[in-house]
Amino acid sequence: MKVSDIPGIIVERLPRYYRYFDKSVRNNVDYISSKEIGEELGIHSTQVRKDFSYYGEFGKRGVGYETTFLRGQLEKILGLNYSWEIVLIGMGNLGEALVSYDGFKRLGLNIRYVFDVAPKLAESKLGDVEVYNIDNLDSILKKNEIKIGIIATPAEAAQDIVDKLVVAGIKGIWNFAPTYLHTPEDVHVRNEDLATGLISLSYHLSN
Amino acid sequence: MKVSDIPGIIVERLPRYYRYFDKSVRNNVDYISSKEIGEELGIHSTQVRKDFSYYGEFGKRGVGYETTFLRGQLEKILGLNYSWEIVLIGMGNLGEALVSYDGFKRLGLNIRYVFDVAPKLAESKLGDVEVYNIDNLDSILKKNEIKIGIIATPAEAAQDIVDKLVVAGIKGIWNFAPTYLHTPEDVHVRNEDLATGLISLSYHLSN
Repeated sequence: MKVSDIPGIIVERLPRYYRYFDKSVRNNVDYISSKEIGEELGIHSTQVRKDFSYYGEFGKRGVGYETTFLRGQLEKILGLNYSWEIVLIGMGNLGEALVSYDGFKRLGLNIRYVFDVAPKLAESKLGDVEVYNIDNLDSILKKNEIKIGIIATPAEAAQDIVDKLVVAGIKGIWNFAPTYLHTPEDVHVRNEDLATGLISLSYHLSN
Repeated sequence: MKVSDIPGIIVERLPRYYRYFDKSVRNNVDYISSKEIGEELGIHSTQVRKDFSYYGEFGKRGVGYETTFLRGQLEKILGLNYSWEIVLIGMGNLGEALVSYDGFKRLGLNIRYVFDVAPKLAESKLGDVEVYNIDNLDSILKKNEIKIGIIATPAEAAQDIVDKLVVAGIKGIWNFAPTYLHTPEDVHVRNEDLATGLISLSYHLSN
């Protein structure tokens, strides 16, 4: 099976496994079992073993998974052994929340540049990150090895920005604008419509 | 098949269908086909028809789906015909972004109260929403019919808050803290670890 054929639902769980192994290593836990992983993450232990089996033979029967080894494997699988440089477009509340979110940096995910249509002079820095006018997007991207872009603009502006990002060589887009984006096939889009989370809860509470 | 047996991956797509039907109605489009839906949302038309078939016979062969009717059906399925009152805990950047996110209200999802361990006096209102000290959580929840809570606190604080929410009768939790929460079986938790989106992109760009 090619990695690209592994079901999305399994890929979605990998970051959660990674976090748990990472936490275990930092707590000096050497081994954890699929049962413990399952209990911590609310997944059946059989499913845990099945998920890992897509990527290799990682566990030892009766002993479990060695936390440091598995964390390293998951880092490689997830591409976290690479330091990603990221641009974010849209300096509203959400953009600000994402730039100041401290869970990205230690994963090697660095929001390096922020762009907006109208960066106010007084706010031309967001923490340590420079905020540029959108007109500079192309020149800054071409000077840097940046593959990931975050869209935190209103829905109306998103497609236009994405077209610019694609031309500038961006290959992964994390889209917070509540609209579907059209991109070439080699560009991966992850849609993160914030309302989806609440609608999903509304669904589960109604049914 | 019971609604609770419908695969999560299908449930995840319902809000996107809902948004597309809603947009179509507002653009005065009367009918749309599964092909059009598929193209707009990047899903195969066969999958679109299959997804809807879990909930009923909605389309007409050769005509497609009547947008107003389908929007109404999806509203009922998703529980959006009900006006949900919501509490949010944690008044950091993320909490602020969520309170000011304008995509919730028109779906009948209203963040009514915000709580924090230390609301600064100067910021005791976030837009139209009152910010209360967390000590008032129980009394305010008991006075109001609130079933959904949003956790926008640091990871360390989350479980403690969730225990309080559960005691106060909350049945749905949208968790932005990067930690797994333990809750009784009748409480539905949706984990929204922000780093997951970026890790997932990192994975797809690496493989």
